[in-house]
Amino acid sequence: MILRDLIARKRDGAPLAADEWAFVARVAADRSAPDYQLAALLMATYLRGMDDAECRALTRAMLASGKTLVRPPGAPAWIDKHSTGGVGDKTSLVLAPLLAACGVAVPMMSGRGLGHTGGTLDKLEAIPGFRTDLALDVATRQLERLGCALIGQTGEIAPADRRMYALRDVTGTVECIPLIAASIMSKKLAEGLTGLVLDVKRGSGAFIPELDRGLDLARTMVDLGADHGVPVVALVTAMDRPLGDACGNALEVRECLDVLRGGGPRDLWTVTEALAVEMLRLAHPALGADDARATVRAAIASGAALERFRAIVAAQGGDVRAIDDPDHLPRAPLAEPFVSPRAGVVAAIAPRPVGHAIIALGGGRSRVDDVVDPAVGIVFHVRVGDRVEAGQPLATIHARTADALAACRATLADIVGIADALVEPPLPWVSHRVTGDGVEPLSAR
Amino acid sequence: MILRDLIARKRDGAPLAADEWAFVARVAADRSAPDYQLAALLMATYLRGMDDAECRALTRAMLASGKTLVRPPGAPAWIDKHSTGGVGDKTSLVLAPLLAACGVAVPMMSGRGLGHTGGTLDKLEAIPGFRTDLALDVATRQLERLGCALIGQTGEIAPADRRMYALRDVTGTVECIPLIAASIMSKKLAEGLTGLVLDVKRGSGAFIPELDRGLDLARTMVDLGADHGVPVVALVTAMDRPLGDACGNALEVRECLDVLRGGGPRDLWTVTEALAVEMLRLAHPALGADDARATVRAAIASGAALERFRAIVAAQGGDVRAIDDPDHLPRAPLAEPFVSPRAGVVAAIAPRPVGHAIIALGGGRSRVDDVVDPAVGIVFHVRVGDRVEAGQPLATIHARTADALAACRATLADIVGIADALVEPPLPWVSHRVTGDGVEPLSAR
Repeated sequence: MILRDLIARKRDGAPLAADEWAFVARVAADRSAPDYQLAALLMATYLRGMDDAECRALTRAMLASGKTLVRPPGAPAWIDKHSTGGVGDKTSLVLAPLLAACGVAVPMMSGRGLGHTGGTLDKLEAIPGFRTDLALDVATRQLERLGCALIGQTGEIAPADRRMYALRDVTGTVECIPLIAASIMSKKLAEGLTGLVLDVKRGSGAFIPELDRGLDLARTMVDLGADHGVPVVALVTAMDRPLGDACGNALEVRECLDVLRGGGPRDLWTVTEALAVEMLRLAHPALGADDARATVRAAIASGAALERFRAIVAAQGGDVRAIDDPDHLPRAPLAEPFVSPRAGVVAAIAPRPVGHAIIALGGGRSRVDDVVDPAVGIVFHVRVGDRVEAGQPLATIHARTADALAACRATLADIVGIADALVEPPLPWVSHRVTGDGVEPLSAR
Repeated sequence: MILRDLIARKRDGAPLAADEWAFVARVAADRSAPDYQLAALLMATYLRGMDDAECRALTRAMLASGKTLVRPPGAPAWIDKHSTGGVGDKTSLVLAPLLAACGVAVPMMSGRGLGHTGGTLDKLEAIPGFRTDLALDVATRQLERLGCALIGQTGEIAPADRRMYALRDVTGTVECIPLIAASIMSKKLAEGLTGLVLDVKRGSGAFIPELDRGLDLARTMVDLGADHGVPVVALVTAMDRPLGDACGNALEVRECLDVLRGGGPRDLWTVTEALAVEMLRLAHPALGADDARATVRAAIASGAALERFRAIVAAQGGDVRAIDDPDHLPRAPLAEPFVSPRAGVVAAIAPRPVGHAIIALGGGRSRVDDVVDPAVGIVFHVRVGDRVEAGQPLATIHARTADALAACRATLADIVGIADALVEPPLPWVSHRVTGDGVEPLSAR
């Protein structure tokens, strides 16, 4: 098989066979294919598309290119959650201990932030000492013991995807639904799951802003799960504004601790609870939605979820004092308010520019090798739709330097839109549920 | 300017501005752009196309990326010919000395063979000692003195094209008309020409087999010439069968010497003369076609063209004895006939497989770093349409080894089609003439 011939066939719009995608994954993983040929194939695939059979074949091939976690026989359900990424999207930090406290094992392999979206690993590493580079066997043992391991995707997992994803990022071929679906699912299926919940974001801050394309992505991933006998449920959630109040790694950890204590922003809990209920019901298919919700709430109310988080932090080397006393989290030297320039209604908090403002503060990455400052960020004190007065603090900026703070303040003036009235209502936080049975619109919450 | 953004814009079907193509050419030439990004851009361009303004901008930018020959003020016309490539396509070796003998300077920068098509440099280097790696200033002086220099494209000429062409070759993005046109014209315009004749091949052995696409390519290159004030005439010629009888480097040199002596295959002369007339008329726009033809024929009949070839060979270090005595050309140890398996009519001699048979004999390249054996090849003794008897020699195979000879004989049995009658008539050798005024169908010759 010659890669150049496969490129030409895909270029001309022909589907590639399963063994041809297997060849592509193999030569990507073992690095025998040059970057430029993979880049050309990815662009041809972006523009010509892939049919469902091709997407299944590529997913299988990328999954098979690396190692996988293996769930021991008789072990409890292994359920994970994956989000397509957003600003302030910190539900993983709550969900992992929460579900573990409910008796579900969560083998969560996460990524780092890149571009305007944050990454779970960066948030976890804001806890001093927290290590996410556990070997797979160590992670598996922790999973059996604590019902949760929070680790990074190692080079052993789906190396074909790792190489192709890195190339997509620099060749304008990221936003291609079958390639996104195959990339996500090849990594998630490597976790040996018995079920997966997807948080598919929509709105201006989402990778794929449009609802119809988001639903298409959700359906594609549900089908890929079915191809491996893994039930997948996708919830479509809002990313037309940041989720929760805090944006920035340590600030988000703090907010998650509030949620684990039964507090925190209402919107964050709405999305987190909806995802938790789906995860629990995948683990226990006979469980009704109301019972699942009650179980989840009890794990918060009893403190079991917070205690499980404490155990996980301790197991992964983190400073457990940070759990009870946020002063043990990194703290930026400057914290100053951003106040409203006028009276009116908060009409918009654009998530993408917020993400870029976090990068500008030093708290995110525009390049994969950027070093992240865990302390900096923005905490909003108002939400879209709130009425505000002139001079009212709308947010607190946590910055390393006065220059960065001033720049962030100038940026926020553009990001937070104050108008006489709400121009259009914000998206419902959880709007659709996608399963193998189809798409179910949810009542706005 | 960020290359990734330009890739995304082209991917989405937007035209790039002139300064953006200039940026692409610059980062290609100085190697600051990685291969994978150029590959992605080339695939996006292949699939989304380029408009005329983009093609002009890319041509200018690739031309400007390197050095150019500069025609001294008051010098005679500088006219070159470029062919899109074919099997047995050896007209350059005749045209260069022929036009020089007619008082036209021919600054011919040629390429090497790759894939099924041969290359002028390989043919010239079949003459023992012949050097094609002249520096540009040496070539310019020879051009003034002898009216002709036959050299290779150096790294100094259009380096942006050189890099992009190498990538196109391995990423399935060669057959894209605006990219082909920009590539050819950026190199040819670097020769400082006052006129250019294009030989656009059509038929199964051509890069672009279809007539309509060939005409499109011709029109695009005529327009690019006009953009630089260089008149361009394109002839569409046949490549549904090899041109002339000889295929293989030294064998083709020998055939060209026959033509320069007034002999050689009729078809080869037909195409060569048509191209020569166009070149001469570009040099002397007032000259009528009949007068041009008479001038060209006189240069052959008088021996002036052959003598000019001798002078060029001597100037470029070649063994001039080869001109009078072909035994001074490399000769393969084995030369055996391929005979007709049956009586009938020669219905086809498929050029692409002939080209591959030459590669198999060692006389061509499937990779750029293959070493070419100048001696080997095939000389046909019949043409499409000829009636043949069983056992009649159809060709002579010149091979280095008995194994190669046997393999070539087996291949020829598939390549040369003998039928009861001609299935379809071969294409006319010269069928269309394309100028700035449009397309003129020519009477079949």
